[in-house]
Amino acid sequence: MTTKTNAGNFFEDFKVGQVLEHATPRTVTEGDRALYGALYPTRFAVPSSAEFAASVGLSPAPVEELIAFHIAFGKTVPDVSLNAVANLGYAECRFHRPVVPGDTLRTSSEVIGLKQNSNGRTGVVYVRSTATNQRGEVALDWARWVMVHKRDAEAPAPETVVPELAPAVDAADLIVPEGLDFTSYDFAAAGETHRFDDYEVGETIDHVDGVTLTDPEHMLATRLWQNTAKVHFSTEARPDGTRLVYGGHVISMARALSFNGLANAQLIAAINAGAHTAPAFAGDTIYAWSEVLDKAETPAPGVGALRLRLVATKGRDETTTLRGEDGKYAPGVLLDLDYWAFVPR
Amino acid sequence: MTTKTNAGNFFEDFKVGQVLEHATPRTVTEGDRALYGALYPTRFAVPSSAEFAASVGLSPAPVEELIAFHIAFGKTVPDVSLNAVANLGYAECRFHRPVVPGDTLRTSSEVIGLKQNSNGRTGVVYVRSTATNQRGEVALDWARWVMVHKRDAEAPAPETVVPELAPAVDAADLIVPEGLDFTSYDFAAAGETHRFDDYEVGETIDHVDGVTLTDPEHMLATRLWQNTAKVHFSTEARPDGTRLVYGGHVISMARALSFNGLANAQLIAAINAGAHTAPAFAGDTIYAWSEVLDKAETPAPGVGALRLRLVATKGRDETTTLRGEDGKYAPGVLLDLDYWAFVPR
Amino acid sequence: MTTKTNAGNFFEDFKVGQVLEHATPRTVTEGDRALYGALYPTRFAVPSSAEFAASVGLSPAPVEELIAFHIAFGKTVPDVSLNAVANLGYAECRFHRPVVPGDTLRTSSEVIGLKQNSNGRTGVVYVRSTATNQRGEVALDWARWVMVHKRDAEAPAPETVVPELAPAVDAADLIVPEGLDFTSYDFAAAGETHRFDDYEVGETIDHVDGVTLTDPEHMLATRLWQNTAKVHFSTEARPDGTRLVYGGHVISMARALSFNGLANAQLIAAINAGAHTAPAFAGDTIYAWSEVLDKAETPAPGVGALRLRLVATKGRDETTTLRGEDGKYAPGVLLDLDYWAFVPR
Repeated sequence: MTTKTNAGNFFEDFKVGQVLEHATPRTVTEGDRALYGALYPTRFAVPSSAEFAASVGLSPAPVEELIAFHIAFGKTVPDVSLNAVANLGYAECRFHRPVVPGDTLRTSSEVIGLKQNSNGRTGVVYVRSTATNQRGEVALDWARWVMVHKRDAEAPAPETVVPELAPAVDAADLIVPEGLDFTSYDFAAAGETHRFDDYEVGETIDHVDGVTLTDPEHMLATRLWQNTAKVHFSTEARPDGTRLVYGGHVISMARALSFNGLANAQLIAAINAGAHTAPAFAGDTIYAWSEVLDKAETPAPGVGALRLRLVATKGRDETTTLRGEDGKYAPGVLLDLDYWAFVPR
Repeated sequence: MTTKTNAGNFFEDFKVGQVLEHATPRTVTEGDRALYGALYPTRFAVPSSAEFAASVGLSPAPVEELIAFHIAFGKTVPDVSLNAVANLGYAECRFHRPVVPGDTLRTSSEVIGLKQNSNGRTGVVYVRSTATNQRGEVALDWARWVMVHKRDAEAPAPETVVPELAPAVDAADLIVPEGLDFTSYDFAAAGETHRFDDYEVGETIDHVDGVTLTDPEHMLATRLWQNTAKVHFSTEARPDGTRLVYGGHVISMARALSFNGLANAQLIAAINAGAHTAPAFAGDTIYAWSEVLDKAETPAPGVGALRLRLVATKGRDETTTLRGEDGKYAPGVLLDLDYWAFVPR
Repeated sequence: MTTKTNAGNFFEDFKVGQVLEHATPRTVTEGDRALYGALYPTRFAVPSSAEFAASVGLSPAPVEELIAFHIAFGKTVPDVSLNAVANLGYAECRFHRPVVPGDTLRTSSEVIGLKQNSNGRTGVVYVRSTATNQRGEVALDWARWVMVHKRDAEAPAPETVVPELAPAVDAADLIVPEGLDFTSYDFAAAGETHRFDDYEVGETIDHVDGVTLTDPEHMLATRLWQNTAKVHFSTEARPDGTRLVYGGHVISMARALSFNGLANAQLIAAINAGAHTAPAFAGDTIYAWSEVLDKAETPAPGVGALRLRLVATKGRDETTTLRGEDGKYAPGVLLDLDYWAFVPR
């Protein structure tokens, strides 16, 4: 057999400053919006209703930011993380403008750091990825670091470069979508009355509802984003025959569950950090709770920003125990996501 | 934790005359049509083909009436039936105009009746719900009654008001979509030759085919309608770990199966009554049969109306035994739906 | 019960020269494209990206040829193969023009051959099926032969007519979509660098990745194409309670897996032959490999054609053993498909 297939990059294939242009550009459609609504129990009014979106200055109605994120992220997998041991973290993810049906996204990544591990067999690769639309405008960008296998343990270690990444996007750097105006926001249509002033830093919100994961559903979702990591699709890829749920599936499920208590956190502005603290599998029942980490004003009319911690758990965590006494994540915690959302004031 | 989540209304929260504006408006898209076709074995020519729909005076092609019904109905769940013991019945459901991709539906409900049960712990709430499109035109309306828990058994009983609901929509009150014209109806394209005159009152039709339900599919469907009742999604919501199939999933499955024998019952005009006579679960194989209950002419060219009983069974009921000698529904009967459909004459 | 349902045609119902107009016309939408991407791990740039498609002369972006094939094929099932014992083969399938969202496909079939089997209880029916769009233009056509039950074993045998079918579509007969131009093809966006000249006749390519089938997914797919053969949907249709996977599901899965190594085989031009050599079921993990059978130039700028054998296996066949010493397909081989694809030169 010939080897025309993609074997992915190994640690020694990455150089600081290198730019990777990822295949395949992908046009977003109303089909994506419908499928997203079938896969996740989302009810946020902006992506659900063209009329509601127009009433807050957004027309055509954008799709959920996580659709754009998953598509843009999926493109980086074949070049960045096909040989990854672990996805270590995200930072500095900002949504620059809404993505609407008809937009075509492509992604490129620049290698911004490299650090070989002391075992000599793996290393950490830092990339900054940027997704642009068909007009060349930035739709979103983010930094990410992954631990990647070396092809050859004997290959020399590169110079260590560890980029400085902000612990959170500064509120002043959030980008409000052009035209967004929450001054005549329809709270009845949106589903809840809570606005910016009703949320207090430190407050936690139990989102109550649970959803049990199934293999067909997470595979449909992950394929939709053209994410090709085989551990999600094949019972022959892992020794125990389970299919690992794509971490983004848990993010989207938790975000959708958070509607119940955060229905007015309409738009995701930025993702500050994210940790997939334990693997998820079919049969797990996912619950979510949130904590208000910070609040900020924005220059847009009627628009405030909440910085939120979104925690997904396997089984319901009614006590919001994030970490045990040892500082480690409590058993059952699957996701610890830190993000900014725009809410009406 | 704060309690910003929706706990739903309890029996004593409802007042006769009260109007509930339901969240979230929802724009219908071609994605919904495609998903509906993936979830149910529907082949009715009007929603399947833009060309066929145009040839009978409908352009753009409407989506299946049940898509509009499920979306409109789903919106009422958080306010009306989150604390329901049981969905007791439907009546007087009329489709006022076709719903097409791009239409945004919102739903409001008026409380039209209340009756506390003698046990003092539950009561029956009657609502008339109306879904309107983005132009404020009525898309469909229906009455429904549900048994709802009281929050506090000691709360005083309201005055009993039981609305008079028609046992069936009068044929004269059916609303034919503007422009509908079956005079040059293409029976070959539609798939069957049977027309209005070929159906006789009292006739029963065995729809032959069966479909086995799965959990991922009914969850995808129910989420698509933004129906949030947790018994459909979580194995931790019911003591036995099963996920209850949304009753509307069985309606849509039975309607789609009825194509085989009723391919020309193109459009649902009204739902007269509906009873979910037993719960359905993944693994059940659904079959359907129909009975012609009534026939009526309409003022539209070439358009007749059939009043049909659509029965879904778990396992095939080749004898159309609807009820046993005790008058109760026979075991295996899941759905008894009474509706009007428009057919070519 | 009345028998208004379709019992399908039996062998003695077919006459050479007879033309069957199949129900139901079906409009293709962006929802189909999205669902296809959720069901199969496809990443071919033309159907994925409106921008990429336009850059090679195709706008709007066509949907995958197999979407058109499955829809067109599904329409023939109720009339041709509802009483089939086996689907014996395909030949001479050509894609005449791209299918884009908004196109409505209808299919008719002409009976081109009949041959009763010596057992007197079954016979082979040969049909040539043609799918046309709303302008009456041919979208695709193909020949197919199926073994069909006789209703009555005593019915006289028809005159034997066996059509001459080409073992492969001649390269000169391939139809290049109007406007297709690969001269400024973006290999980075498409995902691989291999072009026409990099493929050699006789070369085999292992597509590496595997996907485990599930029942909900193959049912969603098969329903989407309005294919009604009940063995795919009901656990009560076969003695062992399994649901047989539609052969076309395996074709689409293998074609999508072939992206890894054949990312530039952008468009399917023709299907020369296809054999479903073993049934597939939920739980099977599908892998694929390809063999280059032939190469040809085309008159279109920068466009070459590769004739490819696409083999799907259950479990990974790293040796590309197609047949055993006895000449029979090796165990584990599910599909042997012979097709032409357009690639950049």
